[in-house]
Amino acid sequence: MQSSLSVITVGVRDLEVTYAFYSSRLGWETAQYVPEEVIFYQVGPGLLLAFFRRDHLAAEAGPMGEAGAAPVTLGHNVGSPAEVDAVLAEAAAAGGSITAPGTQMSWGGYSGYFTDPDGYRWEVCYNPGLRIDANGKVILEVVEAAAAGPVPAAASDQPG
Amino acid sequence: MQSSLSVITVGVRDLEVTYAFYSSRLGWETAQYVPEEVIFYQVGPGLLLAFFRRDHLAAEAGPMGEAGAAPVTLGHNVGSPAEVDAVLAEAAAAGGSITAPGTQMSWGGYSGYFTDPDGYRWEVCYNPGLRIDANGKVILEVVEAAAAGPVPAAASDQPG
Repeated sequence: MQSSLSVITVGVRDLEVTYAFYSSRLGWETAQYVPEEVIFYQVGPGLLLAFFRRDHLAAEAGPMGEAGAAPVTLGHNVGSPAEVDAVLAEAAAAGGSITAPGTQMSWGGYSGYFTDPDGYRWEVCYNPGLRIDANGKVILEVVEAAAAGPVPAAASDQPG
Repeated sequence: MQSSLSVITVGVRDLEVTYAFYSSRLGWETAQYVPEEVIFYQVGPGLLLAFFRRDHLAAEAGPMGEAGAAPVTLGHNVGSPAEVDAVLAEAAAAGGSITAPGTQMSWGGYSGYFTDPDGYRWEVCYNPGLRIDANGKVILEVVEAAAAGPVPAAASDQPG
């Protein structure tokens, strides 16, 4: 099995509410919308986020709990702490709930959370140690921890 | 807010179990592994799947239910029904649980489900109506429904 993820599907109670939030208010263009069944949004190269009728998803994939309790977060990366705050403000204006304001993280980044109308959690994040090269390869580097955070235990093995 | 998803983060109970399943048995290369904290895998251009210590994820993002109950599925697309069956067999051999065998779907595709050690559901799917162009744009077309499935209600407006 290749390490490849093509679609993230989440179950929702009312697709019109989903459409109102993501398309009417946040302005997302649908890749496909089948009323009362599913909405697909393209959220990356070759990547879809599908909002599927919850009862139909459960019929296919098995019994399911509540969206808001799911131990899953959807990460939306941006280029600066100011952009994190701006996206959180935009999401709140669109009807999302801010569940954690933008916060300096111990690992050197800055992030906050909002939930969509079903309770799905988005993390809006600035990660100064993450970059994506021209081929789409993600490079993760350990960032010097913020002043308030823990200092990495491992000493550098490269002379300064 | 752009329609962009950079990271899917899921909470897990024991990262060593996660590593054993995805890396040791399925052969996935890690993008970053911080023992007892997080494992990142690259699962698409610019896209990460993060397995994060469940208690730490809950501390950051709020109270969470069980992985297996999450109304979320991770979609792994492949090129044919035979590949669906092969990936399901591979996942089962690696210790995953097949929760739905490969099945001809009413919408024209073929898919099955397995769960990972925490209970996260992967849908392994062949979708003949989905293609990705050279720029990574996803094109979704309605597929002629399978014989056993419901026939789309809307008549074609194009003369045959």
